[in-house]
Amino acid sequence: MSYECFKVEISDNIAHVVLNRPDKRNNMNPAFWKELPAIIKDIDYGSKARVIVISSTGPHFTAGLDVSSFASVTDPINQADEKTKRLQSGTAFYDNVLEMQGAFNCIDDCRLPVLVAIQGGCIGGGVDLITSCDIRYATEDAFLTIFETNIGMTADVGTFPRLVKLIPEGYVKEMAYTGRKVGAEEAKTMGLINQVYKDQKTMLEAVMVIAADIASKAPLAVYGCKKMINYARDHNTTDSLDYIAIWNATHLKVEEIQEAMVANTEKRPGNFVDLPKSRKQG
Amino acid sequence: MSYECFKVEISDNIAHVVLNRPDKRNNMNPAFWKELPAIIKDIDYGSKARVIVISSTGPHFTAGLDVSSFASVTDPINQADEKTKRLQSGTAFYDNVLEMQGAFNCIDDCRLPVLVAIQGGCIGGGVDLITSCDIRYATEDAFLTIFETNIGMTADVGTFPRLVKLIPEGYVKEMAYTGRKVGAEEAKTMGLINQVYKDQKTMLEAVMVIAADIASKAPLAVYGCKKMINYARDHNTTDSLDYIAIWNATHLKVEEIQEAMVANTEKRPGNFVDLPKSRKQG
Amino acid sequence: MSYECFKVEISDNIAHVVLNRPDKRNNMNPAFWKELPAIIKDIDYGSKARVIVISSTGPHFTAGLDVSSFASVTDPINQADEKTKRLQSGTAFYDNVLEMQGAFNCIDDCRLPVLVAIQGGCIGGGVDLITSCDIRYATEDAFLTIFETNIGMTADVGTFPRLVKLIPEGYVKEMAYTGRKVGAEEAKTMGLINQVYKDQKTMLEAVMVIAADIASKAPLAVYGCKKMINYARDHNTTDSLDYIAIWNATHLKVEEIQEAMVANTEKRPGNFVDLPKSRKQG
Amino acid sequence: MSYECFKVEISDNIAHVVLNRPDKRNNMNPAFWKELPAIIKDIDYGSKARVIVISSTGPHFTAGLDVSSFASVTDPINQADEKTKRLQSGTAFYDNVLEMQGAFNCIDDCRLPVLVAIQGGCIGGGVDLITSCDIRYATEDAFLTIFETNIGMTADVGTFPRLVKLIPEGYVKEMAYTGRKVGAEEAKTMGLINQVYKDQKTMLEAVMVIAADIASKAPLAVYGCKKMINYARDHNTTDSLDYIAIWNATHLKVEEIQEAMVANTEKRPGNFVDLPKSRKQG
Amino acid sequence: MSYECFKVEISDNIAHVVLNRPDKRNNMNPAFWKELPAIIKDIDYGSKARVIVISSTGPHFTAGLDVSSFASVTDPINQADEKTKRLQSGTAFYDNVLEMQGAFNCIDDCRLPVLVAIQGGCIGGGVDLITSCDIRYATEDAFLTIFETNIGMTADVGTFPRLVKLIPEGYVKEMAYTGRKVGAEEAKTMGLINQVYKDQKTMLEAVMVIAADIASKAPLAVYGCKKMINYARDHNTTDSLDYIAIWNATHLKVEEIQEAMVANTEKRPGNFVDLPKSRKQG
Amino acid sequence: MSYECFKVEISDNIAHVVLNRPDKRNNMNPAFWKELPAIIKDIDYGSKARVIVISSTGPHFTAGLDVSSFASVTDPINQADEKTKRLQSGTAFYDNVLEMQGAFNCIDDCRLPVLVAIQGGCIGGGVDLITSCDIRYATEDAFLTIFETNIGMTADVGTFPRLVKLIPEGYVKEMAYTGRKVGAEEAKTMGLINQVYKDQKTMLEAVMVIAADIASKAPLAVYGCKKMINYARDHNTTDSLDYIAIWNATHLKVEEIQEAMVANTEKRPGNFVDLPKSRKQG
Repeated sequence: MSYECFKVEISDNIAHVVLNRPDKRNNMNPAFWKELPAIIKDIDYGSKARVIVISSTGPHFTAGLDVSSFASVTDPINQADEKTKRLQSGTAFYDNVLEMQGAFNCIDDCRLPVLVAIQGGCIGGGVDLITSCDIRYATEDAFLTIFETNIGMTADVGTFPRLVKLIPEGYVKEMAYTGRKVGAEEAKTMGLINQVYKDQKTMLEAVMVIAADIASKAPLAVYGCKKMINYARDHNTTDSLDYIAIWNATHLKVEEIQEAMVANTEKRPGNFVDLPKSRKQG
Repeated sequence: MSYECFKVEISDNIAHVVLNRPDKRNNMNPAFWKELPAIIKDIDYGSKARVIVISSTGPHFTAGLDVSSFASVTDPINQADEKTKRLQSGTAFYDNVLEMQGAFNCIDDCRLPVLVAIQGGCIGGGVDLITSCDIRYATEDAFLTIFETNIGMTADVGTFPRLVKLIPEGYVKEMAYTGRKVGAEEAKTMGLINQVYKDQKTMLEAVMVIAADIASKAPLAVYGCKKMINYARDHNTTDSLDYIAIWNATHLKVEEIQEAMVANTEKRPGNFVDLPKSRKQG
Repeated sequence: MSYECFKVEISDNIAHVVLNRPDKRNNMNPAFWKELPAIIKDIDYGSKARVIVISSTGPHFTAGLDVSSFASVTDPINQADEKTKRLQSGTAFYDNVLEMQGAFNCIDDCRLPVLVAIQGGCIGGGVDLITSCDIRYATEDAFLTIFETNIGMTADVGTFPRLVKLIPEGYVKEMAYTGRKVGAEEAKTMGLINQVYKDQKTMLEAVMVIAADIASKAPLAVYGCKKMINYARDHNTTDSLDYIAIWNATHLKVEEIQEAMVANTEKRPGNFVDLPKSRKQG
Repeated sequence: MSYECFKVEISDNIAHVVLNRPDKRNNMNPAFWKELPAIIKDIDYGSKARVIVISSTGPHFTAGLDVSSFASVTDPINQADEKTKRLQSGTAFYDNVLEMQGAFNCIDDCRLPVLVAIQGGCIGGGVDLITSCDIRYATEDAFLTIFETNIGMTADVGTFPRLVKLIPEGYVKEMAYTGRKVGAEEAKTMGLINQVYKDQKTMLEAVMVIAADIASKAPLAVYGCKKMINYARDHNTTDSLDYIAIWNATHLKVEEIQEAMVANTEKRPGNFVDLPKSRKQG
Repeated sequence: MSYECFKVEISDNIAHVVLNRPDKRNNMNPAFWKELPAIIKDIDYGSKARVIVISSTGPHFTAGLDVSSFASVTDPINQADEKTKRLQSGTAFYDNVLEMQGAFNCIDDCRLPVLVAIQGGCIGGGVDLITSCDIRYATEDAFLTIFETNIGMTADVGTFPRLVKLIPEGYVKEMAYTGRKVGAEEAKTMGLINQVYKDQKTMLEAVMVIAADIASKAPLAVYGCKKMINYARDHNTTDSLDYIAIWNATHLKVEEIQEAMVANTEKRPGNFVDLPKSRKQG
Repeated sequence: MSYECFKVEISDNIAHVVLNRPDKRNNMNPAFWKELPAIIKDIDYGSKARVIVISSTGPHFTAGLDVSSFASVTDPINQADEKTKRLQSGTAFYDNVLEMQGAFNCIDDCRLPVLVAIQGGCIGGGVDLITSCDIRYATEDAFLTIFETNIGMTADVGTFPRLVKLIPEGYVKEMAYTGRKVGAEEAKTMGLINQVYKDQKTMLEAVMVIAADIASKAPLAVYGCKKMINYARDHNTTDSLDYIAIWNATHLKVEEIQEAMVANTEKRPGNFVDLPKSRKQG
């Protein structure tokens, strides 16, 4: 398939999803919001890879929300008469934001780990995007900014619900209230970026090594890790302990363990079963 | 208005609330517990500023709870006969702690960001205070201590409920069990302090720059940031996503966005609408 | 009492629990899972110490789950016929994991602080163990690994439910998906290790000083700190504030405060009341 | 004290709060929203009674929100210019509803049981009111209606948050969607009304007997019942069990138990300690 | 559109969705699970009606899950080799149940009230279905049974998560453990059925009157009622109060209130604005 | 085994646990609190039955807490000196109540349904007991009373945490505040009692028929029902839906379903697999 905003390549169980409109600074236009969840679901439901890497092109990761998307957010009911618009606009706005959030919830809900490699500016909606990914890597010149505050908005496509659970709250509040740029190294100190690389080429090579490592593990086990970490983020300790016990009653497979142990001993890749395709896929 | 424990100055949309009993090491006497919430509510409900900075005077930020407050906590029912005292004391104690917690809940509930600038010792109740603020800054000579443990108490005016959500738990536990002093740099490593400055003058100048930056943003947007970060701290991801969507259905204002964009382009301060006065104010 | 896997020494109100099968790299055999909770409960319910230090022997803290324990996890219903086994196995597995989790829940539920001193490898089940402790210390050569992923499993004896609440999530996910070794210094950066020491002797000396410091505080106050930090980890801010108020209505004791203050003044150890023995003990 | 909307009589430890504008069908005008919480707090914080009975006068319990209150809800920022109004109105509305909810939260938070005796129509805001009370009684001719739906509104001063937890959901939804009148007997079947009486005089006599019975119990014990029932309504079983244990560690008093037992034996009223006055009172 | 399992008629703002395979006792075959959510979403997202009524044909409402659906649940990965099937089956089962639950979640999530009219047997999956509806009506000869228990299963498409919150728990447990039939009158006593009618014709006439009444109210207000009741079912009182306040800040519309009041006075139907179409629709 | 307070008979997969000190009105003495959990765990962990029936002997089900138990609650630290007692008593009380609650938590946590058949008085601690059971039956002369209020206590061994979730709140509050007797028929109206029988013989015969019916179902399916109903009681709808899906991925067994279907067709009892013994048992 081909996309307006993305290039997608799958090989060696790694799906590489690349933001591919560098001349537009990879801003998030209406097509972006349709294509991203379609791509993630296609890979996930079709069990087409074992790990996803999101990266971008050009000097900046993304400039955030495009004005054309913005219009659709603030005025989703253009066809109606004035009174209808006035009475429906809040309700439509609410519906619309939930729909946009869904584009990033897909990443959170995806059974596969999603790594993101950030170069240059990661602005506004870009922060919503990367907080929904599992692990974040960046180049030295990368910077993040909750830019919405600078233009009179409160970020609402996922930044705050996730960022608060990712890093110490004092950092989140300073970033949010000031809208200032946070460089890669500072973000690493915050715990937001796992590793900083000197340039994008170096970063991508390194991230692909990490991705290949993850892709070499038993997919059922890796899926369980993601499920449990996200679950524990949102539930108390008692509930999380119970859930992992019942989860593993279904998912822990002696055959996979034996294969992993033998493969380790024989210093060869394990031959593991993929995740089943999801019925949602067809 | 004038206060026994504080000096309050409001200018350029910044309210500067200064602990002002340096000779008493700014300890928290009975007046402190009445005045602090009165000041915060007055600024917040009256919409008298866009950001609050709390700082202190003298060598130490605060020595914590004053003995005279302490008496009122442990013996709130002095007038009664012995049997009544004995039977009522636990109930009265519970009521009293909730009331004292309210003095810091005001900061958490305040619609405006509250920055705190800490010099010297921040002891006991001082930690309860600063954890209820949004962002913490400190001088090199600043130190924090959960001193209550050293005097046979468990801190109860807000330290643990908030600190555990602010920084990694291992730090909280060491601070709590040992009651040891944690210096500014170490606290910065923990994520508890956002920035360390060489002395108080430098700190206050820098914090006022940050405060001015925050005051220059659209108040409705900044309010939304604080609301959502606090909400996400206490709710799961799904609920937080839903809440920001319905919040912004009310609070995102196209006119503010347009003003912000134009002001950015014209490199001038935006002309934004203040928060409405609260009906609670009168 | 004597144990197969542990050596236990109690002096000066410090209980030192030592993993004591260095030739087996202190792996977690069936005896381990019985003895650890028995030891912790004996100390806690019997009020035999004021703080617990867990350390280990030999080059590695622990190699994690022993194969013999593993067999008991995956096949807990060996005596039954084939059909019964097949139908009961999931239910038995669930029951069994809950039981194993209980061995570490004991540490979390223990009224006393539990410090852990880690040397060399802390592998697989070792990470489940140390995340249930209150504070973690390590030698320079220590390393941690969520090894389960490498052998086709999802860790389920407590790692994820607790680790996600201890440190920034991006670190947890990288550790989980890759199963890679994380050295002591990197773990300190993550907030997982409080302090790194050059060797085990140095570490133990230092940790015993910290333990002695904790043991010198009023036990009722320290118990309250642990209770509240764990409570706040799993409850929202409002509930946590209310709980500490009612907790202290019972637990704050003027006599302990006075004794602490006088002892501080007289520069002598306070003479505090121990925790009461638990009725569970006998 | 005297009030515009209420008559308050306290005798024999029973506070009788009577809606007293029958000619206005006891509608909820601006004074109502100020006076109700003032009255409840005065009785509660001042520990002036042991139980509260709310009743009304004339043919109808209450006609609900008065138009004059309504204006203040929908337009709380009348003094501002048009643009300010437009941008602030949602924020002010939110603040204002929270403030109005507070008038009924007072009843929920009140340490004393609050019984309500309903005659005739209990309309709109009346349902918000009675759901915040502890126990509801009604005359045969009483009826309830979530009238807001009939005038294009969604009830927001407390009806849904509380009613859903009081009675089976199917009843709530039918009442909400249709706005229809539900008679006293039907409401009793739903579990919303505890007892139906043939007329108001009979009802008040019977309710006063119940109130006197409650007032004869130890206030600390009754307070604990209300606290725990409300707590359990909003928390899971595990948390509720823990809370009642720590609550009673403070509140269970052997002296009160002994007095109750002796009084029962001697068939005389017990001589119990009142709740302590709240520090909030002054 | 035409469907295999349903007949759908929309008139006067009422969508009537009829189970239409009486010869198969309206069992839930694979087409059922696809068509039901498609129909509900089409009506909801397209804002094609203001209320939905679900009814059925023939002597029984539904016989529950069809064997052909059942096969797809228990063996969703037929194409794979034996080992893959064995390892993937639990994961696929989990995915598949979530997908089936989605068919009824649609009803819960639908912005419109959904009434259900039950005749004859409502068996197994039928109980999952009706518990996801807002209000339940039944004929005298109707009966419900959690039939899954009788065939060695635990109901998992929604029955328990919802039924426990609908009616007193003792009823749920008896129905669940025994799998016995519960007649309409008994179900009404439980609070599960709102009204019982002597036959289906009478029931449908009466339910259509109720539906017409609901359809005559302002859709924004009715939507708010459903949203809030479902929200309060799953959140504590404090959170629910806050949510309704911010919800109404967006959704309460003075123009709708005025129209409703005038229409009431003039004894004519109000002329209200419909819900906006959802962006999800296209 | 033989017990002081109970007689236990197991036959036809039904364990009948009988309170057997009618001359002491089956009050809850210290032995009671030890024996009840021991009995329940023995049956549950040993998988010795498929359903448990609790009944009693003599005119009254139970008179509640015995004075000798009471002493142990209020003074659990008799051996210590006065100061130690004074400082430890609250902490010991808290520990002790948690331990007593555990005796009834066993019933809630038991994998088997627990039915209770109540004759005569069910007083004080008796209400704590029966609310922890799954289904309640009673004779016409049975009555319940939250007697604690009458003797100056707030019930704390489980009544409020569970009762509030069992029946409409207005009933709970009246029972709690007044401590009055509620007869069997009234309790049936509340939803607290499932069925009322004319005398104990009739009741026991009928309850044994119900128990036999439950015992004839597949134990894995019935266990799932209890687990899910209790889970849904304490979790929101979304979490409960997810949990039942992952639960059944482990527990739904095609072989049991097939056996159930064939047995139904052949009108013979199914031949089902028992629950596995719990590892906790030995």
